[in-house]
Amino acid sequence: MGEKRFVYMDHAATTFTKSEVIEAMLPFLKEHFGNPSSLYSIGREGKEAIETAREQLAKAIGANPEEIYFTSGGTESDNWAIKGTAFARRKKGKHIITTPIEHHAVLYPCEYLQTKGFDVTYLPVDRYGLVDPSEVEAAVRKDTIFISVMYANNEIGTIEPIPEIGEIAKEHGIPFHTDAVQVIGKIPLDMKQKDRNVDMLSLSSHKFYGPKGIGALYLREGTEIENYMHGGGQERKKRAGTENVAGIVGLGKAIELATANLEKHNERTKKMRDRLLAGILEIPDCMLNGHPEKRLPDNLNFSFEYIEGESLLLMLDQRGICSSTGSACSSGSLEPSHVLRAIGLPPEIAQGSLRLTLGDENSEEDVDYVLEVLPEIVGKLRAMSPFYKPTTACEK
Amino acid sequence: MGEKRFVYMDHAATTFTKSEVIEAMLPFLKEHFGNPSSLYSIGREGKEAIETAREQLAKAIGANPEEIYFTSGGTESDNWAIKGTAFARRKKGKHIITTPIEHHAVLYPCEYLQTKGFDVTYLPVDRYGLVDPSEVEAAVRKDTIFISVMYANNEIGTIEPIPEIGEIAKEHGIPFHTDAVQVIGKIPLDMKQKDRNVDMLSLSSHKFYGPKGIGALYLREGTEIENYMHGGGQERKKRAGTENVAGIVGLGKAIELATANLEKHNERTKKMRDRLLAGILEIPDCMLNGHPEKRLPDNLNFSFEYIEGESLLLMLDQRGICSSTGSACSSGSLEPSHVLRAIGLPPEIAQGSLRLTLGDENSEEDVDYVLEVLPEIVGKLRAMSPFYKPTTACEK
Ligand SMILES: Cc1ncc(COP(=O)(O)O)c(C=O)c1O
Ligand SMILES: Cc1ncc(COP(=O)(O)O)c(C=O)c1O
Repeated sequence: MGEKRFVYMDHAATTFTKSEVIEAMLPFLKEHFGNPSSLYSIGREGKEAIETAREQLAKAIGANPEEIYFTSGGTESDNWAIKGTAFARRKKGKHIITTPIEHHAVLYPCEYLQTKGFDVTYLPVDRYGLVDPSEVEAAVRKDTIFISVMYANNEIGTIEPIPEIGEIAKEHGIPFHTDAVQVIGKIPLDMKQKDRNVDMLSLSSHKFYGPKGIGALYLREGTEIENYMHGGGQERKKRAGTENVAGIVGLGKAIELATANLEKHNERTKKMRDRLLAGILEIPDCMLNGHPEKRLPDNLNFSFEYIEGESLLLMLDQRGICSSTGSACSSGSLEPSHVLRAIGLPPEIAQGSLRLTLGDENSEEDVDYVLEVLPEIVGKLRAMSPFYKPTTACEK
Repeated sequence: MGEKRFVYMDHAATTFTKSEVIEAMLPFLKEHFGNPSSLYSIGREGKEAIETAREQLAKAIGANPEEIYFTSGGTESDNWAIKGTAFARRKKGKHIITTPIEHHAVLYPCEYLQTKGFDVTYLPVDRYGLVDPSEVEAAVRKDTIFISVMYANNEIGTIEPIPEIGEIAKEHGIPFHTDAVQVIGKIPLDMKQKDRNVDMLSLSSHKFYGPKGIGALYLREGTEIENYMHGGGQERKKRAGTENVAGIVGLGKAIELATANLEKHNERTKKMRDRLLAGILEIPDCMLNGHPEKRLPDNLNFSFEYIEGESLLLMLDQRGICSSTGSACSSGSLEPSHVLRAIGLPPEIAQGSLRLTLGDENSEEDVDYVLEVLPEIVGKLRAMSPFYKPTTACEK
């Protein structure tokens, strides 16, 4: 057994908060603590800082600052977009279109709406998790009141054809929401060009080196939506609650950092990712999940036959490697991932999945270390399995 | 014109974050950044820290840790309690009882429910803002599905007879919610004794020297309520969303500090408060709003005839004094406070209100300074008013 390193490869679950981000936040916990709704100077400081963050975020995604609303995270943004739109447009219809591979923060609000009389169509996805835009077209009904398709999947990294789906939504005059929680700092967004047909977009700061518990909902001007948090007049009377000023400032700084030099950054990540991929595919009886090309630059997801994902994860942890199986948010449960099931993996294979997601602090040495440790652990676990009989090399 | 100090007397709007609280939070932004839903060690650290905070909060209010759910603040807690209970109990009836002096985070969810077919009774309050428990009794109907009465009012500081109202709710088997955002660190709570008939209680960290954007909802075991944030399995599947670990840790530390030596702390605050009160009441044509005894130890609220609250506030700000007029959360609007209207003040007097709320960093020198500056400013503003004719000394 070699040296032990600490290798964090679970950036899709959450990221550390960058020191520049913490630096930016601290004054708003300390001296600039005033309530931004106050009229005196220490309140105004907070208010101005919020507007700066709103501009940083707007600039990063090619939006207008007036289209940005801060929330408590990706989950609130998704809940707001989905329930807020459904209830606001109820009189126009009760049909919603989404996919079976959405995050639970989209799926469960949709299930909730089903209990309130709404009708939900879950689009088919192919073996890579891709939605075919023509299926969206086919699913549209007269009473369809909105469409929600995630920008990229958090488990298998597959990137959906959002501009194309947006085009269809637009043609039918149906509002279009996308959960972009996994894409900030990886895919450039441009709400004025490429993403001009997206009406609502969710994001969450802790996925791009900002603090947890803060996110935003992009709402294109004119989008019909009910408020979700009722109360004070914050966020131009659209999202009540005393603003998490430090968190908002952190989000602003984090998105500025995450979208600067995005291409160079992705190049570096992809280089590590591809070496990791090639190395892992040499392990027998394993398979890459998700699309081989249309995938997030930092994401790898494998199925290892005859292995339980959780055992794999725990043994990797013992060697200092942080990874995940299924999605972090639903772990604690032992059900196989709904995403892997939706792309057609049988439950026993879905349960043997491993997600590795790379990030800023990873290095080529980390890749070396995982490539040293992982095959060894897979071998050990399989040696303990009564079912395993070695066959071929890995299928891509 | 004398020396200029910085005197913050708007603690009901928000408080600074104590340095011990920031100290406690920082490791969870930095090295312990893992997602608490993860199975590996740096995730577990966050999870354990959340459970410690839950115990700190439970202990502070005499609850069981299993009855505590963290939220993004007082507004979310109120929205959850009100909409979650209403929708969960809709089949049992559609009648809700509340008061006209609630915070907007309670009032607006109730108004929202009215648009969805619910029926809301707003109880009468007396000139001090007090609810008479017999009025609650009288308002109860067969189809009443819950009651929400705030523990203490954020503008005028009046403390409501919560144990008595709870008794009535209990007798009728109606769930009882109270917004206790203003009471932590001021009135001791005990969910097992005095407050045993409260089923739901909202609180918000930034009102007791914790960070903004984090709060909690106390839910007594067995309380019938729908989830509000749907998604991941966090908070024992009751409140989805990646936990704001640093914020939760901050809330835990803050409530521990705020409830230790509460009596001694209140004594100190009340001493300053009473001297401030006596001094201000010497200004002619002014009046104390709220109950003279049944009021929060840190709250003073006055009406100054012939004066515009906003001018008063801005002139105080120029002299370094932070105060408020109406409630911070609704400022930005120029409507007179709904609380002052509900206790019967005519709009022109309601508009001349000033709230001073004391806190930990205030000193007797701050009191001296306000007593020096305020009468001078009131005098100046009145000298500019064509309507003002000096009459009597202040009515208490
Ligand atoms: C795709 C996706 N949507 C939504 C969420 C929820 O975001 P948050 O945890 O900030 O509430 C996550 C992450 O957990 C995610 O990966
Ligand atoms: C009585 C009361 N309820 C609710 C709130 C809302 O809390 P938050 O601002 O944390 O959402 C406040 C403060 O703004 C308040 O004073």
